[in-house]
Amino acid sequence: MDIRARLAKNLRRLRQAKGWSQEEFAFEAGLHRTYVSDLEREARNPSISIIDKLAGALGVKIGELLD
Amino acid sequence: MDIRARLAKNLRRLRQAKGWSQEEFAFEAGLHRTYVSDLEREARNPSISIIDKLAGALGVKIGELLD
Repeated sequence: MDIRARLAKNLRRLRQAKGWSQEEFAFEAGLHRTYVSDLEREARNPSISIIDKLAGALGVKIGELLD
Repeated sequence: MDIRARLAKNLRRLRQAKGWSQEEFAFEAGLHRTYVSDLEREARNPSISIIDKLAGALGVKIGELLD
């Protein structure tokens, strides 16, 4: 599985475990809802700064999103 | 330490542990030497695709570069 697919799968799993909609998750991470939707559809190649925000909002280490 | 600084520090440490110059590391990762230099100076905000190449060349998990 490539890195975008791993990220997409982990984001969706961790977001749903918190009971968050994409919009709620986006708000927590300081991102736009469409950006979160794009990430879950493997449609973006985000920077490490974005990954840091996503991991921070979910309360996980970056390795849990990408490894 | 912010994420760019963590990446820079880990890249340099792991590269030197392999005895690689920046040029050798860049070759192994399929990147340009100046790009590796920029990363070690915290001058770039790389995408996850680039991070995947760097981790692959070093034989480490992504979490070892970013966490």
